[in-house]
Amino acid sequence: MSMIVQKFGGTSVGSTDRIKRMVFHVMKEREKGHDVVVVVSAMNKTTDTLVRLAGELSSDPSKREMDMLLSTGEQVAISLLTMALHHKGLEAVSLTGRQAGIQTDGVFGNAKINSIDTDRIKSELSKGRIVVVAGFQGITDKGEVTTLGRGGSDTTAAALAAALKADRCDIYTDVDGVYTSDPRIVPRAAKIDTLSYDEMLRLATMGAGVLHPRAIKHAKEHHVPLVVCSSLNEGRGTVISGRTQRNAPIVGVAYQKDISVLTMFDCQGGESLILYDLDSHHIETEIIKYQENLVLIVKDQDFHELKRIVGQYDQAYSHTEEREDLSKVSVIGQIKSTHEVKEKVTNVFHDYHIAKASLWESPVGLSALVDRNDVEKAARVLHMHFGLDYVESRRAVL
Amino acid sequence: MSMIVQKFGGTSVGSTDRIKRMVFHVMKEREKGHDVVVVVSAMNKTTDTLVRLAGELSSDPSKREMDMLLSTGEQVAISLLTMALHHKGLEAVSLTGRQAGIQTDGVFGNAKINSIDTDRIKSELSKGRIVVVAGFQGITDKGEVTTLGRGGSDTTAAALAAALKADRCDIYTDVDGVYTSDPRIVPRAAKIDTLSYDEMLRLATMGAGVLHPRAIKHAKEHHVPLVVCSSLNEGRGTVISGRTQRNAPIVGVAYQKDISVLTMFDCQGGESLILYDLDSHHIETEIIKYQENLVLIVKDQDFHELKRIVGQYDQAYSHTEEREDLSKVSVIGQIKSTHEVKEKVTNVFHDYHIAKASLWESPVGLSALVDRNDVEKAARVLHMHFGLDYVESRRAVL
Repeated sequence: MSMIVQKFGGTSVGSTDRIKRMVFHVMKEREKGHDVVVVVSAMNKTTDTLVRLAGELSSDPSKREMDMLLSTGEQVAISLLTMALHHKGLEAVSLTGRQAGIQTDGVFGNAKINSIDTDRIKSELSKGRIVVVAGFQGITDKGEVTTLGRGGSDTTAAALAAALKADRCDIYTDVDGVYTSDPRIVPRAAKIDTLSYDEMLRLATMGAGVLHPRAIKHAKEHHVPLVVCSSLNEGRGTVISGRTQRNAPIVGVAYQKDISVLTMFDCQGGESLILYDLDSHHIETEIIKYQENLVLIVKDQDFHELKRIVGQYDQAYSHTEEREDLSKVSVIGQIKSTHEVKEKVTNVFHDYHIAKASLWESPVGLSALVDRNDVEKAARVLHMHFGLDYVESRRAVL
Repeated sequence: MSMIVQKFGGTSVGSTDRIKRMVFHVMKEREKGHDVVVVVSAMNKTTDTLVRLAGELSSDPSKREMDMLLSTGEQVAISLLTMALHHKGLEAVSLTGRQAGIQTDGVFGNAKINSIDTDRIKSELSKGRIVVVAGFQGITDKGEVTTLGRGGSDTTAAALAAALKADRCDIYTDVDGVYTSDPRIVPRAAKIDTLSYDEMLRLATMGAGVLHPRAIKHAKEHHVPLVVCSSLNEGRGTVISGRTQRNAPIVGVAYQKDISVLTMFDCQGGESLILYDLDSHHIETEIIKYQENLVLIVKDQDFHELKRIVGQYDQAYSHTEEREDLSKVSVIGQIKSTHEVKEKVTNVFHDYHIAKASLWESPVGLSALVDRNDVEKAARVLHMHFGLDYVESRRAVL
């Protein structure tokens, strides 16, 4: 029997009305005869309320207790969705991360899935039930409740799809697919019909928030097709699989506005411990080596932790410089002639008076640090000059 | 080392301000050098919100899913209290019912604690931590989340105190102790300083909502003193233990307003199956045998289920009669001369024009069914005529 994993995000479960719409998508697949496993995130407002309550009690709450607190959001969502499915006469059962057998490491707030024991899910499916699993959460081998960090529910869905050898993993979201850039900033961004895992990984790694890299890696590793689609309409969405129908090497322009940059000067080799330490704290860091200097780029919210860790190794560098006024923009794709693309970016920036702090090649394409005020303009002009602007829709509108 | 279990109810955790007040009570015991285990209920408004959400999705939600949903309320409360304790520099850890080793049967919505594996709690205490346990919830041997039903957090606290051989179990509430009657209805009700387990059981069984009978039974069985006290002030509260300082046999007047009565007529012995069935559904039923008729008294919210179960055995009686307009009032105590007390109640009711539907002796005292409109007056006049009115305070006020 074929099996579909469906994942609904925080906006899909934003209200009981939205929950009823999720029921529609679940029923649709069930009626086609598929086994269905549904992964849900917490209702957005639930999470907001919990974070606010914690903030009223502590300025620096323990990560273990935050996981204990926030994981209730998904538990609320799974029970409500299951009740709504029951109300439609469907057999369904909700499972917490623990009950779904999702084992993680012990990094509270940003845990990684180590393994999934699918016995309980399979047993419930064999009884003809829809299985509704709490995303974003798992349990350590000591029985501690963990959360998976950003994009955690995507990761839960992809990892479950992999472990269950599902035929497809549908990621329902509030956009109708993956775009060549963020349509809110780049109005001519175009929806992409198909992407390879590697292309999607490049887009996601560079800030396309629609899917978390960890989720894509799980899917790639086990050859599970991912479909990013809208919970609000029935469009085809974007299919991410081992195949691509693309000829052009550049797939999109991504940007990350809220980044912070720390440069360590005159590193003499002692920096490897720092990088190991950052990695063990699951801080995603982009590293650029520039002569004897090391530039570390992290999301704003990780900057405090980054500085704390780097500060512990002050013998590894002469001094550091912090920049919180920069953003990153990236041309994503498998770039053959780096020199050519670098020159093009430099020229475009020059023409549009965008000052760049750095420009470097990365495994995902070519990235530049620009003034934070310029990043949206930079994304738009690069999108245009690399031939990504969606002309069809413009014609249709005109 | 001495150990105290503290239980805080839904009103104590009604807001983050209230949570800070709980911290005060916890610190107070910690500073005396006690090991402290804290049991908390959900914030009242959390539970209300969850019940409302469920109601929007289903008119008859599955009990398993309701337990999945409602148990999150306590999980929120334990993590928030623990954060607040950390904020005061105290070592503390929150544990769900599962993590605290609370094993129950599988009766969703009204589960009974079968056993408690205290290893985890003891291990945390040995590290010098305050242990904050989610009340009201447990887990079955199959790993299903259950809730304990009414008074569940009291039961968790008393059962934990028993399993841990605690020196005392303090039940914090919004009143400052156990009263001879409900002070909202009987203004001259007096706070009772000491009660035996059996006296408290009688009061609780007959509707004194401050403590659930199951909790008292756990405490009695393991000789754990219970103290009912206020989280809002520092009064002495009511101590419930094996001893009592009372001479008078009558300890109070209780009433249950929201009861429903079903009478089965012409029972010929087939009713024992019904009673067994009711018991296995954990429906607390008071049974009065009157000639060949059986009068079943339950709380309003159990009446639907009672009728469903009784309806399955329609060969056991000729017909039934339902009454939803009655309430119960009880004179609580170890009554030696039933005849004398019955006569006294009958006379008092006659003098005050209160019509009674039934009057019977029960293990807890003497009870009467009266018109629902008369029950508050009945409680007041019985309280006065059995010498329970608190004269001291009246004098102080006058």
